[in-house]
Amino acid sequence: MNDHVAPTMDWRTVFPEEDRKIYEAARFGGQLEFGQNPAIMIIDVVDSFAGPKGQGIFDSINQYRTSCGEAGDAAIKVMANLLAIGRSLHVPIVYTKGSVVDKYYAGDSVKGTRPDEVERIYGAPIVAAIAPIDGEYVLEKTKASAFFGTPMASFLQRHRIDTLLICGTSTSGCVRASTIDAFSHGYQVFVLEDGVFDRSPMSNAVNLYEMNQKYASVINSSDAIAYLRKLKVAA
Amino acid sequence: MNDHVAPTMDWRTVFPEEDRKIYEAARFGGQLEFGQNPAIMIIDVVDSFAGPKGQGIFDSINQYRTSCGEAGDAAIKVMANLLAIGRSLHVPIVYTKGSVVDKYYAGDSVKGTRPDEVERIYGAPIVAAIAPIDGEYVLEKTKASAFFGTPMASFLQRHRIDTLLICGTSTSGCVRASTIDAFSHGYQVFVLEDGVFDRSPMSNAVNLYEMNQKYASVINSSDAIAYLRKLKVAA
Amino acid sequence: MNDHVAPTMDWRTVFPEEDRKIYEAARFGGQLEFGQNPAIMIIDVVDSFAGPKGQGIFDSINQYRTSCGEAGDAAIKVMANLLAIGRSLHVPIVYTKGSVVDKYYAGDSVKGTRPDEVERIYGAPIVAAIAPIDGEYVLEKTKASAFFGTPMASFLQRHRIDTLLICGTSTSGCVRASTIDAFSHGYQVFVLEDGVFDRSPMSNAVNLYEMNQKYASVINSSDAIAYLRKLKVAA
Amino acid sequence: MNDHVAPTMDWRTVFPEEDRKIYEAARFGGQLEFGQNPAIMIIDVVDSFAGPKGQGIFDSINQYRTSCGEAGDAAIKVMANLLAIGRSLHVPIVYTKGSVVDKYYAGDSVKGTRPDEVERIYGAPIVAAIAPIDGEYVLEKTKASAFFGTPMASFLQRHRIDTLLICGTSTSGCVRASTIDAFSHGYQVFVLEDGVFDRSPMSNAVNLYEMNQKYASVINSSDAIAYLRKLKVAA
Repeated sequence: MNDHVAPTMDWRTVFPEEDRKIYEAARFGGQLEFGQNPAIMIIDVVDSFAGPKGQGIFDSINQYRTSCGEAGDAAIKVMANLLAIGRSLHVPIVYTKGSVVDKYYAGDSVKGTRPDEVERIYGAPIVAAIAPIDGEYVLEKTKASAFFGTPMASFLQRHRIDTLLICGTSTSGCVRASTIDAFSHGYQVFVLEDGVFDRSPMSNAVNLYEMNQKYASVINSSDAIAYLRKLKVAA
Repeated sequence: MNDHVAPTMDWRTVFPEEDRKIYEAARFGGQLEFGQNPAIMIIDVVDSFAGPKGQGIFDSINQYRTSCGEAGDAAIKVMANLLAIGRSLHVPIVYTKGSVVDKYYAGDSVKGTRPDEVERIYGAPIVAAIAPIDGEYVLEKTKASAFFGTPMASFLQRHRIDTLLICGTSTSGCVRASTIDAFSHGYQVFVLEDGVFDRSPMSNAVNLYEMNQKYASVINSSDAIAYLRKLKVAA
Repeated sequence: MNDHVAPTMDWRTVFPEEDRKIYEAARFGGQLEFGQNPAIMIIDVVDSFAGPKGQGIFDSINQYRTSCGEAGDAAIKVMANLLAIGRSLHVPIVYTKGSVVDKYYAGDSVKGTRPDEVERIYGAPIVAAIAPIDGEYVLEKTKASAFFGTPMASFLQRHRIDTLLICGTSTSGCVRASTIDAFSHGYQVFVLEDGVFDRSPMSNAVNLYEMNQKYASVINSSDAIAYLRKLKVAA
Repeated sequence: MNDHVAPTMDWRTVFPEEDRKIYEAARFGGQLEFGQNPAIMIIDVVDSFAGPKGQGIFDSINQYRTSCGEAGDAAIKVMANLLAIGRSLHVPIVYTKGSVVDKYYAGDSVKGTRPDEVERIYGAPIVAAIAPIDGEYVLEKTKASAFFGTPMASFLQRHRIDTLLICGTSTSGCVRASTIDAFSHGYQVFVLEDGVFDRSPMSNAVNLYEMNQKYASVINSSDAIAYLRKLKVAA
């Protein structure tokens, strides 16, 4: 295996045909409508989860055991582009990252984290290529969901947000947990297929499929950008 | 395909070897410890999600579009056995089911539900073979997680519960959402591999694997029963 | 004392002048702005908290120990008028009341409730003079706040509500707890001075003063109605 | 009036006799039982809320508009003593203070705060006389309640806490909001009459009375200490 080419799986076909027929028969999977007041949410894209650019997954894990390896490289480019356009259109942007203090005392988002690892893993900064600029909110969270034990819902309500465009990592971890909660809170939720990543190619694909069935519409970043442009230029 | 034999996939091997190596390298997946004060949680096992016994998935979906078909038959037997033993050992038991009123007004747990379907789907009773008995709490919930917008955490705190044994359906939906929240709340969470079910065999297997990596220990009902017996007979 | 005339205290002057000077010096108490999408919230106005019309407080307590006596009579007229106008202007309306099942299993909103009282106190219907009509949401809650362990925030988000007009009982109990949470969630919160009531005249006045200092603007129902008319007729 | 002697009001008698008879008739106010696993919670005792020692309220407000003046001096001594004993008995201790970042972006706990004030008010450190020591959790919160949008409940569950001893400020603000939520979560809640303070003497007294009626038992620090000693020496 070549570590340096990130393998991918197609979320539309990762499930066996039989399972897809079941989902189809159950009539899940309908399209959500874009709202009038979107925000961009960038979940947990810190150095310890993204890993150095171009580095294979196993080497990357040797450096930070939570790293997703080179799977993040393409997604980070997508996020950088989305953020540039979002900023030019004055779309509210919110980042999340782990809180060292809260995770140390109130427990991590996943099992098995040792107390002496917390600072190294969660103290890592947001990846430089998509670093927040002045005036953008970096919400520090404790658990998997961006909403659990955080003022995220208050922030969104304060800006009267009705639509979320979600990027980040990991697809099967904090992205999925945040997506479930975002839908439960009543937002129109869109997960960007090319703006999320995971250490496991299969976890990435399966979770996109399942989120698209139940809690979100999975879209391409180009569709997200077209929506923002139409909404903001028209306004 | 024969509808009447539920296909299954093994959660331990559903991921490609490469992905499992990644998870292993990342050192997720450790075993949680059983606590001193467990409760049994039975999630959403109502007629409209379980379907009639022995009926194939597509026929079952024709009756209730949310049905998981015959996948639930074996799990329901496991739950019936666990509940009988739990009752004999005075273990607190809590059921969840959907609230017709709350889902109608505050929105369903998944996208795409039509208002005129809510009563039929969520008004369905808990499956007779595992029906609650007098004095057992049936908590009506609105969203996927048993904790979201419910007094579940207050109920558990009131009984000083530290350990949850989770059964029910669907593995990829309400069980996973509840498991993430249970772990985030600080419980020791155990999901019973033979006590949960899903309409999609692959969703069932993949979600067991992922929950076992991050938020819970996936165990067999025989291990759960051995734990309860040891704890309660010793006490 | 004559039980049949409800004594009242003026919330604007219930505090000693010295305390009011302190609050003034601290520059709390500013006016909130009305938003674009209001809802009316009627908190816990059930027979067991309102008591029969015209009955004095101690007689009323003999019937339902939670009764607020005749203090509710005038407020209920105010609510009936507000609801009629709100309905004619298509303003979303949400009622709360206690859930018998959830309070029995997960504990009441206040200490000291005996399990054998729960059904009688919380099974009581909403006062007939302001009963909900078809299509209005009666959200059953467990604890003091209308938001705690309920899907209230999801309901409000679904309707993109930004402004709450709060009536009901008791001012010092469920109204105050709900008002704190509503403000914490990010809503513009207005408590109607003539639409809330409490068993204790002093609790009623003191809590209006304190809510007006910190979490809400306390207004007269006439101001609420003027706002709704202006907003909806203009629209 | 002499600013330098903090006036006080007795919470047991601050209500008129008639109101107290109503509360008594309603049979609120019963005593809660101490549990087996207590924690000490110190709410928001930062320089900007406590003010310099011995300084009168109006001078203090001139320095920090949120200051409670000399009302905190005696309570801080009580807290220092309780903390010393709690530490010697290995009782878990948790402090709260405002989060500058979260309040700036997600909104303050009370209305009317200007963005340019947030850093000065909430960046102030915990009062030196009761400063946390190594290994004690300082949880940064956004809103009035120590539980709202925070991982407090996860922290407490992780330590299997069943009993809270609450001190801090302001009695009518963050202490009351936290007390309501603590009770709603299912804890046995004790508010220390001599360990809390408020800028308004009447708010302090009224809120102690009301919390003691509904959500907590108000006790003296000497009773809290006797409980801790009995529990931990016996253990």
